[in-house]
Amino acid sequence: MPATIADNSVGIVATQISHFTEALTLECGKTLNEYDIAYETYGELNASASNAILICHALSGDQHAAGYNSQDDKKPGWWDSAIGPGKVIDTRQFFVVCINNLGGCKGSSGPNTINPETGKFWGPDFPIVTVKDWVKCQHRFMSSLNISRWCAVIGGSLGGMQVIQWTIDYPDLLKHAIVIAAAAKLSAQNIAFNEVARQSIMSDPDFCDGHYLEKNTVPRRGLMLARMLGHITYLSDDAMRDKFGRELREGKLNFGFDVDFQVESYLRYQGRSFVDRFDANTYLLMTKTLDYFDPAGDYGDDLALAFKQASARFLVISFTTDWRFAPQRSHEIVKSLLQAEKQVSYIEVEATHGHDAFLIPIPHYMNVFGSHMKIIAGELC
Amino acid sequence: MPATIADNSVGIVATQISHFTEALTLECGKTLNEYDIAYETYGELNASASNAILICHALSGDQHAAGYNSQDDKKPGWWDSAIGPGKVIDTRQFFVVCINNLGGCKGSSGPNTINPETGKFWGPDFPIVTVKDWVKCQHRFMSSLNISRWCAVIGGSLGGMQVIQWTIDYPDLLKHAIVIAAAAKLSAQNIAFNEVARQSIMSDPDFCDGHYLEKNTVPRRGLMLARMLGHITYLSDDAMRDKFGRELREGKLNFGFDVDFQVESYLRYQGRSFVDRFDANTYLLMTKTLDYFDPAGDYGDDLALAFKQASARFLVISFTTDWRFAPQRSHEIVKSLLQAEKQVSYIEVEATHGHDAFLIPIPHYMNVFGSHMKIIAGELC
Repeated sequence: MPATIADNSVGIVATQISHFTEALTLECGKTLNEYDIAYETYGELNASASNAILICHALSGDQHAAGYNSQDDKKPGWWDSAIGPGKVIDTRQFFVVCINNLGGCKGSSGPNTINPETGKFWGPDFPIVTVKDWVKCQHRFMSSLNISRWCAVIGGSLGGMQVIQWTIDYPDLLKHAIVIAAAAKLSAQNIAFNEVARQSIMSDPDFCDGHYLEKNTVPRRGLMLARMLGHITYLSDDAMRDKFGRELREGKLNFGFDVDFQVESYLRYQGRSFVDRFDANTYLLMTKTLDYFDPAGDYGDDLALAFKQASARFLVISFTTDWRFAPQRSHEIVKSLLQAEKQVSYIEVEATHGHDAFLIPIPHYMNVFGSHMKIIAGELC
Repeated sequence: MPATIADNSVGIVATQISHFTEALTLECGKTLNEYDIAYETYGELNASASNAILICHALSGDQHAAGYNSQDDKKPGWWDSAIGPGKVIDTRQFFVVCINNLGGCKGSSGPNTINPETGKFWGPDFPIVTVKDWVKCQHRFMSSLNISRWCAVIGGSLGGMQVIQWTIDYPDLLKHAIVIAAAAKLSAQNIAFNEVARQSIMSDPDFCDGHYLEKNTVPRRGLMLARMLGHITYLSDDAMRDKFGRELREGKLNFGFDVDFQVESYLRYQGRSFVDRFDANTYLLMTKTLDYFDPAGDYGDDLALAFKQASARFLVISFTTDWRFAPQRSHEIVKSLLQAEKQVSYIEVEATHGHDAFLIPIPHYMNVFGSHMKIIAGELC
């Protein structure tokens, strides 16, 4: 239980589920005839419905972005540092919406839910979903809340990719786009890391070709490895040095294969705890979603052309030690936006934390992001 | 079979095995009462035994550094580009020695050999070996060849670490030290990658707690994952982009978990082929050897102090896009050498290949390395 819930917390919040019965055709060609979307909202929609913000989550995120789901929750939502009354995304001014993307594992239709057409777990048969599919789905969801235009769409990492896709696919339906620690497409190295993560999961005998839930098992080892590997790419070399250095867990080398260094202990812990909260098939799907993201692909690999119709005002943020999606990747986005003559602000934040920085309330980051949000709030009618 | 063996190849060479019966006490406290060392030599030892060069191999290397072991060999030794008549390490001038380090899997005593005391495979009971142990063992081996001083000790990556240890532990027994793409110790990030590789192997059910050879099986999936991961860290992001970009194997996305991108195909191939030529327990040992390497550790973390007794002349080489052991890591070595007032040349080679560059005959690298070797050859008496 949270010792006390701070005044600037959104407090206790409940995930809600919306059921959609209008068929959704996905990029892969498959159709979901019906599906659920789990979501949370914070703050109040104003009378003109002009203050709605969509938060897009990253690979291992979900709809629970802020506050606590119960008095027993030990940790708040994944972006609680930025969302709440008086925080950067101020819930006294904005109506904040966060949905668990299709294919997720926290209540939206995905591999760990029941396929209504078979009565069995979707498992590996859940279709591959793309960022374009998600944005299409979020667009439908938006109507269900009677929101006709987002005041802003905001996201970090894979979340930032959804923001980019929004500005291209529904240019008139968002006023502001905030793209944090993202990239316009994955590099071969990014894909390579994802592939090792997938092979870790898929080669685990308990994966059972993806049908592990039916067999009442879980590919724990594979998912743990995938998460350990992911964690290395989320932290900078500097952050790891500052956090662990070569510190020994027991003060001496053990000349065996147990943990010697603190960093090993940390990674094993991160890996193990992830297994208890995430679904392996969802992890596989999300990595493919990342690999497939390539909004310029439809525009002859010309990102500036892809942005041509965009009308949102952009804020792009990167972090100096992020090597998963390095500042150079944000530069590509900014350059294309400038080439397309769009309105864009760009901030490169000095941070030692690597890719994880986007989740951390680093003062300079919060100040710049906060000032920008105040301007957006000032425009509300 | 090699189509034709080039004139500048050392040609067909045979691995030899030396059996040692003098007990070797290791850093971990355990003792090997007897052991084998597999080695190859190229060129001829001169009358004064002054032209001997020791080549130290890296994690997945072995004693077969140059030439072919048979007419059927498709590939030459791992550093054939640098070793041979007329090559950078010119076998017309030098007597070149390369040994498979203890714990290896190519003929030297290691996990895949028989423990003479039990008559069974050593397997996971082979002791953890350190760079210091290797150097001690190489020192004994040297006497067996009647070499009293190396003209040069040369190595890349983990091989370069052995070179560093030689200059500290046996300062008078080598004239030149050539340290390529190495580091004076691993970073937390380096250790983290090794830990994921180890967990990949150890969590494979076919690992059988390391006793897989007795059970006539192999932890193929785990070793494959470890190698795939290793490969990502050997290549630079640039090299991967140049080599694969986002090229699709079949020209289109398949919306499934088969290979979409060329880079995935490449990694799977690298992983699979490694399993056929390497032992998983050896891989585990080598990663621990890397993690434990810390020559400054015995000198109050003062690398300059560690180098104080060194009398070798140093050449240190790094590669601009190497992110496994980045140029900064070589700078640390060079700075400490300068602080200790040692003679050192340092070259930072522009290369797009990442860590793998040390194995590639990049013209600038070969020119500088070659000039240095010519100077060394000129000093021979």
